[in-house]
Amino acid sequence: MSNLVNHQIWLKSRPNGVPQASDFAIRTSDLPEIGDGEFLVRNQYLSADPAMRGWIADASNYWPQIQIGDTMRAFAAGDVIASNHPDYVVGERLMGIFGWQEYAVAAEKNVMTRVTDDSLPLSLSLGVLGLNGLTAYFGLLEAGQPKAGETVIVSTAAGSVGSCVGQIAKIKGCRTIGIAGGPEKVRQCIEEFGYDVAIDYKAVTDIDAAIRDAAPEGVDVYYDNTSGPISDAVLRNIKLGARIAICGTASYPSWNPWNIGPRPERHLLVKRARMQGFLTTDFIDRFEEAVVDLSGWIKDGRLRYREEMLEGIEHAPGSLQKLYSGENSGKLVMKLPAAG
Amino acid sequence: MSNLVNHQIWLKSRPNGVPQASDFAIRTSDLPEIGDGEFLVRNQYLSADPAMRGWIADASNYWPQIQIGDTMRAFAAGDVIASNHPDYVVGERLMGIFGWQEYAVAAEKNVMTRVTDDSLPLSLSLGVLGLNGLTAYFGLLEAGQPKAGETVIVSTAAGSVGSCVGQIAKIKGCRTIGIAGGPEKVRQCIEEFGYDVAIDYKAVTDIDAAIRDAAPEGVDVYYDNTSGPISDAVLRNIKLGARIAICGTASYPSWNPWNIGPRPERHLLVKRARMQGFLTTDFIDRFEEAVVDLSGWIKDGRLRYREEMLEGIEHAPGSLQKLYSGENSGKLVMKLPAAG
Repeated sequence: MSNLVNHQIWLKSRPNGVPQASDFAIRTSDLPEIGDGEFLVRNQYLSADPAMRGWIADASNYWPQIQIGDTMRAFAAGDVIASNHPDYVVGERLMGIFGWQEYAVAAEKNVMTRVTDDSLPLSLSLGVLGLNGLTAYFGLLEAGQPKAGETVIVSTAAGSVGSCVGQIAKIKGCRTIGIAGGPEKVRQCIEEFGYDVAIDYKAVTDIDAAIRDAAPEGVDVYYDNTSGPISDAVLRNIKLGARIAICGTASYPSWNPWNIGPRPERHLLVKRARMQGFLTTDFIDRFEEAVVDLSGWIKDGRLRYREEMLEGIEHAPGSLQKLYSGENSGKLVMKLPAAG
Repeated sequence: MSNLVNHQIWLKSRPNGVPQASDFAIRTSDLPEIGDGEFLVRNQYLSADPAMRGWIADASNYWPQIQIGDTMRAFAAGDVIASNHPDYVVGERLMGIFGWQEYAVAAEKNVMTRVTDDSLPLSLSLGVLGLNGLTAYFGLLEAGQPKAGETVIVSTAAGSVGSCVGQIAKIKGCRTIGIAGGPEKVRQCIEEFGYDVAIDYKAVTDIDAAIRDAAPEGVDVYYDNTSGPISDAVLRNIKLGARIAICGTASYPSWNPWNIGPRPERHLLVKRARMQGFLTTDFIDRFEEAVVDLSGWIKDGRLRYREEMLEGIEHAPGSLQKLYSGENSGKLVMKLPAAG
């Protein structure tokens, strides 16, 4: 395999806030030999995920910080083309931390899911059947604990995670309210993702009143992708015993120092409510069962998704910028020439 | 019973913040006849509780607001002296919402606990065997979910609730850290309530460093009685998977408008932590089992308490002021002449 040439996107400068295309560069390198217990993955799809901002940021986070000069850590999906590991055989398809590069020398710890169901596209393992879908699934069902008949509200409701949350809540018998920015996203919420109500936070003059109108008896579950003023407005409209699942904090480009806002303690107390952060990979032992559920819902038409495919690794450096500007329409994936 | 004269403390003016003695007045009234299903309680002990501030406050809360002219709602303990209810018999001892008055015409909904164990003083049903102890018990065990070997930190650690939390955590095999104000309370934390470490937040120059020194690996459970800067410092020192049980928000005299502070969302996310409000009376069906546990721990010397007894109903109006100034030493109770 040493005759293969690898292209890698590496971190050139550390951004404060959303990483820009100029923070990355591309390089050509030879592939090292795979060691004992390792295997070689040919990436077919590279992912752009909001969490990558945190991996780069100075602030400590749940993954080690990426250093200047490192190949950018990223989820990717591909096939095994050489292996020195008995459990990973040539030809099998994997999704994992394989980086923004064409080929990855990988070990077991890099693998997130094995993609065994050939009837659905491999790229879905990066989105609705990957961390996005799994984040929606475990965040909603474990941290949110929705019950049939309850009202679930979702911020960035048309996004890759949010759209999945809304549909799973619906599948579980809940009433769903989506909060999104702009008429096109609101249209998607209603027409594609089946929300009962969608609120355009950019268009309404009083977000509190809009939420109150949508949920006159209050909100049971809030799936929070934003923090900030949207979350404050939702919090003012929660019901007794509400659960707030904190998935993301996209409202703020930086959390160093911590952002300031209304303190939730008194309200959580009065409402006997819960606010909970979660990390999808804490549920890795249950990924397989979740993927079976999610795949089933896709096949029977109850779980829809959007995917935006960019052709070529050269789109990776600008992809996070695109993601945070909200320009993308669905899960953002770079397709490499290897993709079959 | 209509020949009995009742003395009642009633709300004269609505305070903004901590109720002062001047917000109340005393009146004499005749007792009404007890109706069908009602019974007459002769109060022996009246309670002063932090929650009473909320009952009076303008802000909506989990109990209906007390109106000007109303007899002050309060927990009290006494004995049944007349009854038109088959389940409440003359001579039995009850703790419930019987008000700041000598006699209460009560119904089943007013009753919190029946005091069946004669081997412990009746006044304890207002403190360590009443809402204080029950608040410590359910808040710590249900919202906090402490496991043996974990580190539990408590604010207002020498208070009626906090001191009980620290001791229950110890009984459950946890390492305990108390935060309290002043050397006398710190002494109580260590010598009376068995905390492993006690931090005097009024004396330390860097509360963050003090918590870090006390819990170098971080805090698993925070039992929060204060909100405010103490909570912010604890939050910066939580461990992965931490649980924050919100019991009170004593740092702030008012929450209208909401107080401003560092937003917890990002930190709860990164730490996969949980912040949860709870209301003790949501666990009313389990009060009996909890009182059995708490009584057992008192009898075998593992649960100590402090009680400050004021003689006479005339001390009730100033008692909340005293409570919030931190002048009291232990559970504050007014003893009435009826007390045996």
